[in-house]
Amino acid sequence: MKTLKVGIVQHTCDTNRIGNIEKSIKGIEACVRKGAQLVILQELHTDIYFCQVEDVDMFDSAKPIPGEDVEIFSKVAKEQQVVLVSSLFEKRASGLYHNTSVVFEKDGSIAGKYRKMHIPDDPGYYEKFYFTPGDLGFHPIETSVGKLGVLVCWDQWYPEAARLMALAGAEILIYPTAIGWESTDTDDEKERQHTAWEVVQRGHAVANGLPLVSVNRVGCEPDWSGVTKGISFWGQSFVCGPQGEILYRAPVRDEINQVIEIDMQRSESVRRIWPFLRDRRIDAYDEILKRYRD
Amino acid sequence: MKTLKVGIVQHTCDTNRIGNIEKSIKGIEACVRKGAQLVILQELHTDIYFCQVEDVDMFDSAKPIPGEDVEIFSKVAKEQQVVLVSSLFEKRASGLYHNTSVVFEKDGSIAGKYRKMHIPDDPGYYEKFYFTPGDLGFHPIETSVGKLGVLVCWDQWYPEAARLMALAGAEILIYPTAIGWESTDTDDEKERQHTAWEVVQRGHAVANGLPLVSVNRVGCEPDWSGVTKGISFWGQSFVCGPQGEILYRAPVRDEINQVIEIDMQRSESVRRIWPFLRDRRIDAYDEILKRYRD
Repeated sequence: MKTLKVGIVQHTCDTNRIGNIEKSIKGIEACVRKGAQLVILQELHTDIYFCQVEDVDMFDSAKPIPGEDVEIFSKVAKEQQVVLVSSLFEKRASGLYHNTSVVFEKDGSIAGKYRKMHIPDDPGYYEKFYFTPGDLGFHPIETSVGKLGVLVCWDQWYPEAARLMALAGAEILIYPTAIGWESTDTDDEKERQHTAWEVVQRGHAVANGLPLVSVNRVGCEPDWSGVTKGISFWGQSFVCGPQGEILYRAPVRDEINQVIEIDMQRSESVRRIWPFLRDRRIDAYDEILKRYRD
Repeated sequence: MKTLKVGIVQHTCDTNRIGNIEKSIKGIEACVRKGAQLVILQELHTDIYFCQVEDVDMFDSAKPIPGEDVEIFSKVAKEQQVVLVSSLFEKRASGLYHNTSVVFEKDGSIAGKYRKMHIPDDPGYYEKFYFTPGDLGFHPIETSVGKLGVLVCWDQWYPEAARLMALAGAEILIYPTAIGWESTDTDDEKERQHTAWEVVQRGHAVANGLPLVSVNRVGCEPDWSGVTKGISFWGQSFVCGPQGEILYRAPVRDEINQVIEIDMQRSESVRRIWPFLRDRRIDAYDEILKRYRD
């Protein structure tokens, strides 16, 4: 495959679950009309970002895999004949939930799934309450459009995750995500946070010589517990090439369905001039497996 | 220590070795006059970037540690009462050389040394001919201005190196470097290369919540073998904070001696909101120690 047309669906969510699902589906359809061979949805696209509050009722949104949500998106992938990266709230058992990306083949079958490995927990992002850390490890998902290194949100801060995907032959790094600003942060801090988020991911693209797609949600969602003024999700989904060069950056406030053509042969040429994998000092990395070297 | 005043010396080099050393010394002195507590020199600052060609005569430039070059820079550190990060061509034995950063305490003693672990080799950068890969591992160097995570040039593309320094308590990441453009690259490619270089390092700062200083050489150096048109070293030494935010970027062509004040307490506050070290999946990283996961 010489080029890959990737569709990005960046949208707002609210408490109308059916409305959210419809938005994703409309976005997928729009991307396919524009020629997308692969469509990537944002993190937990069926719901509000419910992790703003620790609320047991929110577990009602979780569905088994296979199950209700999988059926919906499987049907869309098949109808649209497109490879689809979804991001679902998985109920594995009572009291056991994951933040799981399910990847569908264009015939609607499940190509593979990835359970978010790194789980954040900070004010407004109480994910450790909802999600058990993934137990499937870091493995690219083989599809008809290539080996997809699918990771989710908080994973994006971890070079280890990207590297493990690259070492396993991923041809592209993919991050459904949900990140935004808290209202009390200064404008300077907001700018630093967004830039850090983009830079660290572009860094993974560079370090591994791979293109990367990050799809973020957009819009303001209130904190229904009233503790904070909610989160303004910063949109700005982006695509970069294997030198971290920005190929597309979505707006900060708008919903978008965008198709970006990625030259999949650039990884080969970039890795020829910058063969980082050749020179890794695997004889000297063992303490990366430690929590801290103290 | 609440703030750290870091001096950067970015200069050209030519075949006049004594002249190169004088430039470094003048730069150190200028930085100290401006209040620097720590001065960082570029990679292999005593010489032209001799790795453009595989030439056995270039081994004449290498000196033992301790030895001639160490004596010179030890004396400067002591006279200037400054902690100094040098970057020297180390002769360990006949036929055994390293690319070694020697860090001097402000009393002129050697605080520690780091032997470049990742060694590149591509047209114009024939370092595998000259340098045996380091055998000292990744350990920060303890000094009176903090624990310095000193790495060298090609290391800057490896998230593993930065991570190991952070895990061992480094308070700042430091990269003496020598990188530039080859004349046949297009302007677009030059732009992508420079940006990738800066972005991947800023990514290490973000992933580890640490400030970072990268000091590059500047100026055009000819290829005396006549194979290429030489290297235009791209200068642009820079300092960023623990969110990858640029605090200073040097010009692309000029020699500079610049002092930048770094707020050393920001790492603590950034790591409180983004506690990446807390959530590392060390139970799932073991295959990072593999060459490739095939």
